[in-house]
Amino acid sequence: MIVFFTHTATHAQIAEMQLHLKQLGFDSQLVPGQNICLVHKLKDEQLLANFPFVSHTQIISSSYQLASNAYKTETNFQVNGIQIGTHFANIIAGPCSVENEKQIFETAAFLAKNNIKFIRGGAYKPRTSPYSFRGLGKDGLKLLHEAAKTYQLNVVTELMDLSLLDEVAQYTDIIQIGSRNMANFYLLGELGKINLPILLKRGMQANVNEFLLAADYILSGGNEKVILCERGIRSFDPMSRNVMDVGVIPLIQSLSHLPIMADPSHGTGDAKFVNALAKASLVAGANGLMVEIHPNPKLALSDANQALTFEAFEQLLSDIELLKPTIQKPIDATYSILV
Amino acid sequence: MIVFFTHTATHAQIAEMQLHLKQLGFDSQLVPGQNICLVHKLKDEQLLANFPFVSHTQIISSSYQLASNAYKTETNFQVNGIQIGTHFANIIAGPCSVENEKQIFETAAFLAKNNIKFIRGGAYKPRTSPYSFRGLGKDGLKLLHEAAKTYQLNVVTELMDLSLLDEVAQYTDIIQIGSRNMANFYLLGELGKINLPILLKRGMQANVNEFLLAADYILSGGNEKVILCERGIRSFDPMSRNVMDVGVIPLIQSLSHLPIMADPSHGTGDAKFVNALAKASLVAGANGLMVEIHPNPKLALSDANQALTFEAFEQLLSDIELLKPTIQKPIDATYSILV
Amino acid sequence: MIVFFTHTATHAQIAEMQLHLKQLGFDSQLVPGQNICLVHKLKDEQLLANFPFVSHTQIISSSYQLASNAYKTETNFQVNGIQIGTHFANIIAGPCSVENEKQIFETAAFLAKNNIKFIRGGAYKPRTSPYSFRGLGKDGLKLLHEAAKTYQLNVVTELMDLSLLDEVAQYTDIIQIGSRNMANFYLLGELGKINLPILLKRGMQANVNEFLLAADYILSGGNEKVILCERGIRSFDPMSRNVMDVGVIPLIQSLSHLPIMADPSHGTGDAKFVNALAKASLVAGANGLMVEIHPNPKLALSDANQALTFEAFEQLLSDIELLKPTIQKPIDATYSILV
Amino acid sequence: MIVFFTHTATHAQIAEMQLHLKQLGFDSQLVPGQNICLVHKLKDEQLLANFPFVSHTQIISSSYQLASNAYKTETNFQVNGIQIGTHFANIIAGPCSVENEKQIFETAAFLAKNNIKFIRGGAYKPRTSPYSFRGLGKDGLKLLHEAAKTYQLNVVTELMDLSLLDEVAQYTDIIQIGSRNMANFYLLGELGKINLPILLKRGMQANVNEFLLAADYILSGGNEKVILCERGIRSFDPMSRNVMDVGVIPLIQSLSHLPIMADPSHGTGDAKFVNALAKASLVAGANGLMVEIHPNPKLALSDANQALTFEAFEQLLSDIELLKPTIQKPIDATYSILV
Repeated sequence: MIVFFTHTATHAQIAEMQLHLKQLGFDSQLVPGQNICLVHKLKDEQLLANFPFVSHTQIISSSYQLASNAYKTETNFQVNGIQIGTHFANIIAGPCSVENEKQIFETAAFLAKNNIKFIRGGAYKPRTSPYSFRGLGKDGLKLLHEAAKTYQLNVVTELMDLSLLDEVAQYTDIIQIGSRNMANFYLLGELGKINLPILLKRGMQANVNEFLLAADYILSGGNEKVILCERGIRSFDPMSRNVMDVGVIPLIQSLSHLPIMADPSHGTGDAKFVNALAKASLVAGANGLMVEIHPNPKLALSDANQALTFEAFEQLLSDIELLKPTIQKPIDATYSILV
Repeated sequence: MIVFFTHTATHAQIAEMQLHLKQLGFDSQLVPGQNICLVHKLKDEQLLANFPFVSHTQIISSSYQLASNAYKTETNFQVNGIQIGTHFANIIAGPCSVENEKQIFETAAFLAKNNIKFIRGGAYKPRTSPYSFRGLGKDGLKLLHEAAKTYQLNVVTELMDLSLLDEVAQYTDIIQIGSRNMANFYLLGELGKINLPILLKRGMQANVNEFLLAADYILSGGNEKVILCERGIRSFDPMSRNVMDVGVIPLIQSLSHLPIMADPSHGTGDAKFVNALAKASLVAGANGLMVEIHPNPKLALSDANQALTFEAFEQLLSDIELLKPTIQKPIDATYSILV
Repeated sequence: MIVFFTHTATHAQIAEMQLHLKQLGFDSQLVPGQNICLVHKLKDEQLLANFPFVSHTQIISSSYQLASNAYKTETNFQVNGIQIGTHFANIIAGPCSVENEKQIFETAAFLAKNNIKFIRGGAYKPRTSPYSFRGLGKDGLKLLHEAAKTYQLNVVTELMDLSLLDEVAQYTDIIQIGSRNMANFYLLGELGKINLPILLKRGMQANVNEFLLAADYILSGGNEKVILCERGIRSFDPMSRNVMDVGVIPLIQSLSHLPIMADPSHGTGDAKFVNALAKASLVAGANGLMVEIHPNPKLALSDANQALTFEAFEQLLSDIELLKPTIQKPIDATYSILV
Repeated sequence: MIVFFTHTATHAQIAEMQLHLKQLGFDSQLVPGQNICLVHKLKDEQLLANFPFVSHTQIISSSYQLASNAYKTETNFQVNGIQIGTHFANIIAGPCSVENEKQIFETAAFLAKNNIKFIRGGAYKPRTSPYSFRGLGKDGLKLLHEAAKTYQLNVVTELMDLSLLDEVAQYTDIIQIGSRNMANFYLLGELGKINLPILLKRGMQANVNEFLLAADYILSGGNEKVILCERGIRSFDPMSRNVMDVGVIPLIQSLSHLPIMADPSHGTGDAKFVNALAKASLVAGANGLMVEIHPNPKLALSDANQALTFEAFEQLLSDIELLKPTIQKPIDATYSILV
């Protein structure tokens, strides 16, 4: 049960209520900044009758609570003046890894020229093999940040471990949580306490319920700025790296108020098919795309097969133009336009 | 190795060559009507030097041979004047099962009004439970055929077992092979010998190699009219009936000359998401759609959850209009337009 | 609901009851030879109050009915004097394919020497590629039958298509239905009408509910002699051909009265691991093993990687001796011992 | 390539060699304490001819290197006098979560009575839902440690996040890395630097190559004490929580020198089937078991369905007695016996 408080409810009053519930056997959890409290297993709102500062209650039948669209119907927020959310679509592009100054500045310049607002790039890379290139670390973060700010782009980069949070937070506008960390619940809990948007990628074997519960880990800490991202699931066919679950986009939109983007680069693992899956995802309702591009994909130090060339990315952008009547969501809208 | 013969090659000459190869340890297989012969494991064309009626040879490295785009670059054919193939898109719609005269005639009239050229409907239904409605059998075939011909539609219906081939062939224009029969190799081999187009659905856990080899079973019998169809694969998430593998559409188009359609109804299993996945499939390059519709889905005797209402189907058709600049393939083109 | 009749119930009486139920909207299905009738969706036994020849009724909550252990607690029968069933374990061994007289007679002699009672061998082979060896057909059936009878073995061989039923039935003691045909419902329905035991392999992607419903297709036709067989499921790891689902053995035994055997040869796809998985399956409760062996596995025309040599098979038999205190079921018991 | 040094090689010499290789374009990585260096992509040992302190080199063709049995044939070590490794089997048992003093002391006493040497218990629990019981944290660690030491047991407990390493390391004898952290490469890298044994559970959808590469993350840091553990993989059938991949045990033993244990509790998710899968795993060659037990499973705060009662666990122990002739590895052998 979600318990909503009146604006005048005090911390002391709420704590008293929580103690009362605890004595009845119900654990509860205050959501910082939201004026609500989650009370687990409670079904009978009569037990709260004596607490006048309780304005109303809500029972949500799914196991996920705050990610449910029964709790809230939409999530929209801005990042440095750019709108993100249920009503919008955004394009995030950049290399898998930050490799050197030339590569990342060239990419940033190219994105700015094409009016893109978000650059991605990995500084700490989760690689299946310990013997693969693992990223430039802090130097990569700095280069990415510098290139982005030179061209007025916003940064999206991955946080691999909680011990790197302060370092990463300093250089990014959105924190990306990769597929392998989607079920790293301790990390997710800590991300609920900060004030940066979180782009949460679906685990490669996570079902929808688990994905939305992972979002609840962040949301129940008080951080409302969560963006989901489908990036392909693992299947039985070794012919493709992953299977892009395009259908999960409208499915999640029917269950949750959170925006959901699509990463067709990982979704297919092959640059040849990124254009088709990028368009398919947008047409299916995605709130944006995360696409890997590289000035020279053949020389990329990671995920070389799936990065688009600049030319292929520009082709995708022009293909998306044709889809705008179908997409019906502004892409990379700036805040001023919408006020 | 594929061995191509000159037009003047005689049966006797080819048989002699096959005998010669057999003595060298190479099995071979003549493809009726194609003037070619498949010789298994043969790599050295010098062994054929003494047979002047051999025009040329080709080695195809994949395990599938005749489905490969190394063998052929496109497949286009017509069904009663309607174009089907790599260069086209078609829309096939209708109920999961033929239930009664009223239902199927209403559906046929509705499709004709919307300028659709193909009606689908099951008469023999593969049901997971023996206690579910299994179709009207021959009576269903007759009703479907009658309704189709009244409204100048072409029929697509499933063949469940070889013993029903003559019966089904009499009433259909395209034979559908369902997901559960994709690996029924004996049946596929027999379908290679007939002259009706085969719509071959992907097995729910068939990988791409297996899917194209299944097509080779038909093609190597001499039947060139094969249409592939993606219909969703089985995944680990019980929340959706299947996962529509939209990415397999461009993947297969990069490997094979065969047209590939999409069945978003089975692909998602939920009518709410059919529109999104139908559009996504077309945008990803599908050569058509197979969609379940029903005059009153709530009363449908099978697959009630995934059938579109007539209104929802008309909405899909009008959504597809907006996508035409992206699709770039004529939909349900008639032969006269293109000659 | 399962409706049980008294022994004096006549066909006419039952037909009258079925008509009555049909008028109330309930379809029903008589199970030949079992004196029962399945009435779908019926919950209220009061509706049968006027039919005194109804002895009692039973409602089974699972979707599968006759395979459920709520209906029956065990299934045991004999094949030419050898006991098969819930209380027993059997060993079936032989080559993937019957290749020639020498191979199959050598194998039969070897099995007889080791006191094995069942020989397997494929005459019609379901091969993923149309260009692989597809078996000797009827000649293979004859050779297998002859070798078996020479050495007093029972035959187990696969039926690939209904059109081959008469031919196969003539030469086999148990009909095997392969993984790819587990969901070939039309075929299963026909197998319910015959009087040969059916060894039904689990589809490589079939869940337990579907597996037991497939058994119900046979059982509801009146054929009670069904043996289930786990043979590995498809997973995401291309390193092994299949994943042997050892846990499904006790799981199915907790749900069904049907015996369940294990095929560790397909289950792992690698001869090196067959011994381990054969023992694991027996220890987990399997009612027997189906194992591929070959006089010279390197020369086998199909599944060469997974066939045991004769030496490795004898090693397995002696390893099984050590497990007998754990297995607690007689292996290949003859009827006379147990009467 | 693995480069082995003579015992007299100095740090300065090795650093010079690494610099030389770097200039030729080869990254290299010294393995602390092992007197070896991994040089990535190097194939030509002639390039090392000028470095006399190089004793020999080895090229291992798999992507994993130090986990390969080409590098080493066995791994055995002791934990407080108890032998663990390729030549042994161990039994680790205990509750999913440490819940309170009574529960954990009762369990410890019970285990000691049955001559078990390792107790497991979770203090920080990775729960799919943020609203489930997440463990007692540090208090749980202390209780577990205290109970273990009272009864001379060794502790195995999970490390959920790097930030908890110091805290956990203080109270445990073996660090468990759970399924969800198997691909947390940053964490694995840090575990390579410590001197505690690591029990590394397979990710629920990790293939064998990824599993062994995860081990390489730890091994290449210099920590040789790695125990693998199969705990069930995710499949398409919602009827069981996981599918225990029993076949992966002999498969991994054919590829790696690392011991591999089995966790049948998670492997099946149902206490009813733990006995069967525990025995199957041991018979298939597992180097031990990790089993969840609870004084009163019905009241367990997590994973209640899969915990064995004390009685069921004693039954399992006595069943294992019967299997000893097959297992052929000493179980929980003490060091003194073997010296």
